[in-house]
Amino acid sequence: MTDTPSSISSVENTGNLTVMGGGLVGCLLSLYLARHGHQVELFERRPDIRGAGPVEGRSINLALSDRGWRALEGVGIAEAVREVAIAMHGRMMHDTQGGLTFQPYGQAGQSIYSVSRAGLNRRMLDLVEQEPGITVRFNQQCRRVDLKRQELEMLDTETQQERVVPYQRLFGVDGAYSAVRSALQRTDRFNYSQEYLNYGYKELTIEAAAGGQWAIERNALHIWPRGQYMMIALPNLDGSFNCTLFFPYEGPDSFATLQTPAQVTEFFGRVFPDALPLMPQLETEFFENPTASLVTIRCFPWAEQDHVLLLGDAAHAIVPFYGQGMNAGFEDCTILNELLHQHGHDWGRIFQEFEALRKPNTDAMADLAVYNFQEMRDRVADPRFLLQKKIESKISAQYPEKWLPLYSQVTFSSLPYAEAWANGQAQERIMQRLMPHIQQEEDYQRPEVQQLLAQEMAHRS
Amino acid sequence: MTDTPSSISSVENTGNLTVMGGGLVGCLLSLYLARHGHQVELFERRPDIRGAGPVEGRSINLALSDRGWRALEGVGIAEAVREVAIAMHGRMMHDTQGGLTFQPYGQAGQSIYSVSRAGLNRRMLDLVEQEPGITVRFNQQCRRVDLKRQELEMLDTETQQERVVPYQRLFGVDGAYSAVRSALQRTDRFNYSQEYLNYGYKELTIEAAAGGQWAIERNALHIWPRGQYMMIALPNLDGSFNCTLFFPYEGPDSFATLQTPAQVTEFFGRVFPDALPLMPQLETEFFENPTASLVTIRCFPWAEQDHVLLLGDAAHAIVPFYGQGMNAGFEDCTILNELLHQHGHDWGRIFQEFEALRKPNTDAMADLAVYNFQEMRDRVADPRFLLQKKIESKISAQYPEKWLPLYSQVTFSSLPYAEAWANGQAQERIMQRLMPHIQQEEDYQRPEVQQLLAQEMAHRS
Repeated sequence: MTDTPSSISSVENTGNLTVMGGGLVGCLLSLYLARHGHQVELFERRPDIRGAGPVEGRSINLALSDRGWRALEGVGIAEAVREVAIAMHGRMMHDTQGGLTFQPYGQAGQSIYSVSRAGLNRRMLDLVEQEPGITVRFNQQCRRVDLKRQELEMLDTETQQERVVPYQRLFGVDGAYSAVRSALQRTDRFNYSQEYLNYGYKELTIEAAAGGQWAIERNALHIWPRGQYMMIALPNLDGSFNCTLFFPYEGPDSFATLQTPAQVTEFFGRVFPDALPLMPQLETEFFENPTASLVTIRCFPWAEQDHVLLLGDAAHAIVPFYGQGMNAGFEDCTILNELLHQHGHDWGRIFQEFEALRKPNTDAMADLAVYNFQEMRDRVADPRFLLQKKIESKISAQYPEKWLPLYSQVTFSSLPYAEAWANGQAQERIMQRLMPHIQQEEDYQRPEVQQLLAQEMAHRS
Repeated sequence: MTDTPSSISSVENTGNLTVMGGGLVGCLLSLYLARHGHQVELFERRPDIRGAGPVEGRSINLALSDRGWRALEGVGIAEAVREVAIAMHGRMMHDTQGGLTFQPYGQAGQSIYSVSRAGLNRRMLDLVEQEPGITVRFNQQCRRVDLKRQELEMLDTETQQERVVPYQRLFGVDGAYSAVRSALQRTDRFNYSQEYLNYGYKELTIEAAAGGQWAIERNALHIWPRGQYMMIALPNLDGSFNCTLFFPYEGPDSFATLQTPAQVTEFFGRVFPDALPLMPQLETEFFENPTASLVTIRCFPWAEQDHVLLLGDAAHAIVPFYGQGMNAGFEDCTILNELLHQHGHDWGRIFQEFEALRKPNTDAMADLAVYNFQEMRDRVADPRFLLQKKIESKISAQYPEKWLPLYSQVTFSSLPYAEAWANGQAQERIMQRLMPHIQQEEDYQRPEVQQLLAQEMAHRS
């Protein structure tokens, strides 16, 4: 992987572009647009997070994978990010006795990377501010978008001054609760859905061991799968882990039933016994940190003529269980960049092709994310499922041209998500036909299994 | 059917209730609430439609069926409405040569009723204003609902005065584009979707014949099914018919391709040849009347604590193809009325039971409405489908305890929609097994068919 900023040629400026949202995708998008020679005005609702922010490594973590890296390389910032990323080579499952099982994510050398959202956002804001064509404005709350007049009603949250800002071309990258999308939602024939899981999540911390060391395996994404709920942990640079408990809002084991510090400690001691001793702040964090909800947002169209385009979570927020939310948003930038190269200043065409190309793939990714939730919280604790994963990786090794596991297609390739999902479903059907003949790993070599497999493979292109 | 206003007992007033929306469901709901002894303040965005409105019979028509009648009876207004309703005993299909096929909706005496939306709304506003407990306020636009403070920001559209109105209990019956629901949509864990068909509709008119007579069969709902599109017509009291063209927005035959009066006339002459001569205003109406979109809206929860409840289209807008939109909204009032009887002033419980009881049924109705669109525009023109309908009505006659056609369950019963839909799907599966043995109506009597049928019926309770 090498950074290739030179691949973007500078072209004539064709008027101002307005980017709403200075999160990860908003920053990356602004960089791409500026590298195409456009003047970009970037509005961000929050204050500049590079001021007084939370301590590095305490904010929520993200898993960067190939699609994300590719998008970062496109503007030449991948190497800088890699310096603060921690490779996770596989899933480390923790059972209720503290027993561990490791399952690699892909082939040797293939990893996903734990990065701090805040750290990455700060780094990208630095780059954005250094970019000549971009002006960043913080503390700018978008109160309303007037699509007919092409005007924004902006509130400066520091001065409490309101002003009207006209726009020529508006990019809505203002996240799952997008103000830009709100305006589109009120237009005729705009399809929209927001769908919540009956689960919330809570962020907690595994402390660093003595000397800033990692108390559990550093280079893994840790999972405590428990059927109806689970906890995960991603490593931070300072030796701590950022844990996330995904937990039902109601029911026998749920946020509703854990009401006192004693109940929380008893529960963790029972179901996450190896983690509890590493979480000295548990009782405080559990009640002080917010319980956040998990939403999938779908909408269409993403473009309003050649005036407005939604990207990232504003267009397609997904639940976090495949680690693809940020990666999908970054890939939006890669795709848009390709269209900018192809169609220059023909914004109408660029917007239309973008939404047509991208929508089936982000819909597939939304389905995949919900599917992986079931897999992570439930199926990864099932010995038959783990056996199936082992068999699948043998198939992939034996037929490398014909079989890439679904997880690898999503995580370690740039195959469109919809194709990955269709392939994955076809592969799952083959596994369902094969697994009744397999009771243990060695059965894979049995002639009848090999013959069955050869038949299945003969049908695959 | 008799009106039974006496079945509602007057109970002590427990504070003001606020009803947002003075459409059909808002009026009916207000009547029910007032009959329970509550003080009701009803806000309506539009001016009083009883002033200068469109001429009776020219506005959009609705099909009242059993669920709607039952709800009207509950407040004693069914007989008054019946006087201005026209019975439609079945579907009259018009083929491309003008040939007619009639298909009864149910058993003899079972009909649905064409009523004018505006006429019905006016009649109900009269009743609402006569009701001592209800205050109606017109020209009141709800700008914002503050759920935390329990306050409405209302704009008087005549005086342009804004004022803040506190509420104790707010009923959002303000339709598919509900302002009350907009506020709920911004709360955490509120599931919501708005989904448009790729079809729009346009209202047109078949003129009355000489002497105010009906130019085509008065007591039928007329359908011109044409595969990818259709026109329907409902009778008015003045001899005219209100037609609705359901038509794709884009494609070979679509709103996009009919751009000139000549194109419209040529198209209607070719595909609706018997209707064209009866539509002298076609060219004007086609370009002056709006093209309206078709949306399905689903959301949940409908209640916010014991403060806010959504009903009618605000909670569950559906496409119009089963003629159940108004009927479903009216049935909401029937169900709420039952809960008011059961639980008195326990609003929290009333709201919670209401949404739990009602949501699966309105979801089923939304599915049924889309399903019936496919049936009406496409399948009713298929001879095999018409044969299946005839066979089904024979089965229903032979096994009246075991088989009520789906349409009758929806239209002529008060069976919960979800049960009707499940029954209908089970019945369709039986028909799929039976029809391969039937080539013509007489085959129904063949011993093998009767034996097969007897076997199927043995499995049904």
